[in-house]
Amino acid sequence: MKKYILLIKCQDEIGLIYRVSSILFLNKINILMNGEYVDTDSGQFFFRSEIEGDIEETVLISNLTNSLPADSIISLMPKKKKKILVFVTKEHHCIGDLLLRHKYQTFNAEIQGVISNHNILRDLVEKFDIPFHHISTSDCSRREHELKVIDQMKAYDYDFVVLAKYMRILTEEFVEEFSEKVINIHHSFLPAFIGANPYKQAYNRGVKIIGATAHFVTENLDEGPIIHQNIIPVDHTFSAKAMARSGRDVETTVLAKALDLVFTNKVMINGNRTIIF
Amino acid sequence: MKKYILLIKCQDEIGLIYRVSSILFLNKINILMNGEYVDTDSGQFFFRSEIEGDIEETVLISNLTNSLPADSIISLMPKKKKKILVFVTKEHHCIGDLLLRHKYQTFNAEIQGVISNHNILRDLVEKFDIPFHHISTSDCSRREHELKVIDQMKAYDYDFVVLAKYMRILTEEFVEEFSEKVINIHHSFLPAFIGANPYKQAYNRGVKIIGATAHFVTENLDEGPIIHQNIIPVDHTFSAKAMARSGRDVETTVLAKALDLVFTNKVMINGNRTIIF
Amino acid sequence: MKKYILLIKCQDEIGLIYRVSSILFLNKINILMNGEYVDTDSGQFFFRSEIEGDIEETVLISNLTNSLPADSIISLMPKKKKKILVFVTKEHHCIGDLLLRHKYQTFNAEIQGVISNHNILRDLVEKFDIPFHHISTSDCSRREHELKVIDQMKAYDYDFVVLAKYMRILTEEFVEEFSEKVINIHHSFLPAFIGANPYKQAYNRGVKIIGATAHFVTENLDEGPIIHQNIIPVDHTFSAKAMARSGRDVETTVLAKALDLVFTNKVMINGNRTIIF
Amino acid sequence: MKKYILLIKCQDEIGLIYRVSSILFLNKINILMNGEYVDTDSGQFFFRSEIEGDIEETVLISNLTNSLPADSIISLMPKKKKKILVFVTKEHHCIGDLLLRHKYQTFNAEIQGVISNHNILRDLVEKFDIPFHHISTSDCSRREHELKVIDQMKAYDYDFVVLAKYMRILTEEFVEEFSEKVINIHHSFLPAFIGANPYKQAYNRGVKIIGATAHFVTENLDEGPIIHQNIIPVDHTFSAKAMARSGRDVETTVLAKALDLVFTNKVMINGNRTIIF
Repeated sequence: MKKYILLIKCQDEIGLIYRVSSILFLNKINILMNGEYVDTDSGQFFFRSEIEGDIEETVLISNLTNSLPADSIISLMPKKKKKILVFVTKEHHCIGDLLLRHKYQTFNAEIQGVISNHNILRDLVEKFDIPFHHISTSDCSRREHELKVIDQMKAYDYDFVVLAKYMRILTEEFVEEFSEKVINIHHSFLPAFIGANPYKQAYNRGVKIIGATAHFVTENLDEGPIIHQNIIPVDHTFSAKAMARSGRDVETTVLAKALDLVFTNKVMINGNRTIIF
Repeated sequence: MKKYILLIKCQDEIGLIYRVSSILFLNKINILMNGEYVDTDSGQFFFRSEIEGDIEETVLISNLTNSLPADSIISLMPKKKKKILVFVTKEHHCIGDLLLRHKYQTFNAEIQGVISNHNILRDLVEKFDIPFHHISTSDCSRREHELKVIDQMKAYDYDFVVLAKYMRILTEEFVEEFSEKVINIHHSFLPAFIGANPYKQAYNRGVKIIGATAHFVTENLDEGPIIHQNIIPVDHTFSAKAMARSGRDVETTVLAKALDLVFTNKVMINGNRTIIF
Repeated sequence: MKKYILLIKCQDEIGLIYRVSSILFLNKINILMNGEYVDTDSGQFFFRSEIEGDIEETVLISNLTNSLPADSIISLMPKKKKKILVFVTKEHHCIGDLLLRHKYQTFNAEIQGVISNHNILRDLVEKFDIPFHHISTSDCSRREHELKVIDQMKAYDYDFVVLAKYMRILTEEFVEEFSEKVINIHHSFLPAFIGANPYKQAYNRGVKIIGATAHFVTENLDEGPIIHQNIIPVDHTFSAKAMARSGRDVETTVLAKALDLVFTNKVMINGNRTIIF
Repeated sequence: MKKYILLIKCQDEIGLIYRVSSILFLNKINILMNGEYVDTDSGQFFFRSEIEGDIEETVLISNLTNSLPADSIISLMPKKKKKILVFVTKEHHCIGDLLLRHKYQTFNAEIQGVISNHNILRDLVEKFDIPFHHISTSDCSRREHELKVIDQMKAYDYDFVVLAKYMRILTEEFVEEFSEKVINIHHSFLPAFIGANPYKQAYNRGVKIIGATAHFVTENLDEGPIIHQNIIPVDHTFSAKAMARSGRDVETTVLAKALDLVFTNKVMINGNRTIIF
């Protein structure tokens, strides 16, 4: 029997769980794990279920659509590895970790290809037999470069784009086109130290903790829904450079944890916030 | 409309959520928050729901009992503050924190009384207008002392007993009589450093981390279901005494967190493990 | 033999440790523990030593002054409990913890008195036999109120002022007058969420971590040298109010840890940063 | 001017810092950073200094030897990358991380070669152009296998041996021969869950935290001086297998942090405990 993930998001009303669970029961579908959450501020209902059975996808979705409120967003996905593209620039730490997770299948995804505005990481990526595409930014505008990137993306089938220290600002058009599909790792405990040189800023401020934030990318730079955050202690003996070094370690683990959540469909977006089941 | 917590534990079968949610729907009860978990090892189903409505308690329980498997344990509790007794010996840190939480109502419980085998903490407890009972251990056996304690307990109505650094071993009879009702804070990251002088043991072992564990008390000393654990870093400059001092801080916060979970009925016991909703 | 803490801060040069250690040796003073740090950015030398012996204070300071660079700041303090004043407003959690540490002597300080712009916490403070002074802000300007506060402070001998959730902005005059003597606990992971309603801000931003920061107070509000920071995880089920509740727990432990460092003279100020020995 | 690390360990006496700093001063050596620690239990003095100057190694050591107590152990090392051998079995996570740190020079060491009792990780190691030696355990006793390993080690110049999930018990002879040179990562928060299947043990015990411990290897298995420990939270939804997966992440970061300390000579051994400068 095949396993699926069922995600539902709609306006909250009485009886939603009853309606969903009765349809699942009538279709002889077994619930392996269930999570619901109602955001009382927005009145939105969020539902995630891991289900199992001889599932006819179109029938089940049609049954649910007929029974649930008109604004419902229903996703039914077979439980399987995600396909991802990874964007990088010069720093190796996040992509290095992702390549190991890909090779040893310790996360629920397969890296289809890596796209970069520099050629530096080709050597590392190709060691792991993953295609690496260097798309140079010289002699082209931000948007022209991005169109070349999008063109390259078309060669692939993918579920998510991971910005693994991709140090280019994306245009509004790009972000809209790939809405809810792009995950970034930010080198600070957002919203502290937005912008350039966060570790230099952190050093100057004399912080005792360095953080990292993984988030979905939206039109407002560094302001999309946060998926995961964590920190690492530092002290007065840390130069800005040493803070950056510690920061890279926490960036690596925070991105890995966030991707683990996203790739197992445990994350739902609720405006500028995330629900983590 | 009154709010309730509904807890269900039974052998897992297909359709349990459908059955529960249909009964709640037919009784016009609103689900505010829902959690389910199936332990695939033991095949046990665990369900927790925060519900709201004009609830007739006996009708609802009877409807659920008729619809659910014969082995079901169903608890329906109005959402309200728990009543607790606290046992202490000489150390003030946990009881001090609990008295503050009681006074300022920052946890979901009211301390009814404090029982101690020493008289040292009377002064502190009485500052907060809580009855303090010193039950001396002199001239009596362990069980005789305990019977005096049980006798004193009878003066109170209570939901849970909190051992806030109560340094007496309880008899098997006591633990059985108050099964699933007694919570202890243990001064180590269990199962490390079981037994006497854990901080001296930790110091001798040269650990870099000190932990604390809050757990339900069962007949096997220091081996009941764990509710919460946390740690605090230490280093080579810490003497055993300094480790104990740090340990007291982590004991205080771990016990407070565990009690917060227990007093909001978020903890269910699954053999020697806990489910935390 | 008496124990002292010796702190030295000066421009770095070759041979400073040799000069200090030779003076200590010639005065037959035993070094129990030693720490040095050179800030290579500012070229400042920081030195802390725990020493023991038949120490003639004026002789030792005079010897050191003659041997060290002209800009040296030398502090020689007998090892003893600090005297502190605590300022509070309405929230009890930090002052509650400090009162327990005072009563059971688990930190290196004695609370001399508590000053508040509200009368709410009198009851709690007086339970612990500490004088409580309510200085109302009605019918007076910010500075007038502060002058009344300063007048009250004159009744006491004290080493430090602790702002334990004192929700009044201090004037520049006050901060200058009590420079390096005032410690504040800020309800966020500075520099994130500066200003009003940090937990509401944090909730709206969808953070997964709540922090707290203890720092010395300088003329720039919320920007003094940071002593200690820590965090506590939160998730999407936390309302702004629940985040504030978790925040209070981390504020309490962060302030306690920072004060422990300050009261044992382990903190030296280096511009806008701190050295923690 | 060359940089050196100077480490001294001896019985504590009055005037040791004075003696060391006067010799450094007379040799015109600049102290960049200094740490001292006296273990009051054992009466041992530990000293670490980062120094710089036109240093004549034999002269300096001879000066120090003449001035310090007879039992002094003095190490003077030029500041440079360590050479290491890594032993592995089947698990990739630690060696994968170390290979990335080697390639991008983000730790203070160079991997000379990898030795394994299985052939599984050859592919990964050779991607990074590091020699991989498979030394089979078939048809030989534990000691015979070890002698083959030692024979292979002779081909290399190395400072430390890192057991990066090497799942073979070393003989007493081996441990003695390479005393204070072998670092292991243990899959638990030692001393909890010593022995086989620690994650299964942890799962059965219902722990809420998984730990890892990096330590020097001594004749008592899993009991050598601890260098670093850390933890990762888990909950009731984690199977033993999921705990092991989380455990691998914390093993990776704990080993990396411990090696960073060891490879910058910040770790001194004090009986069964470590001093971390």
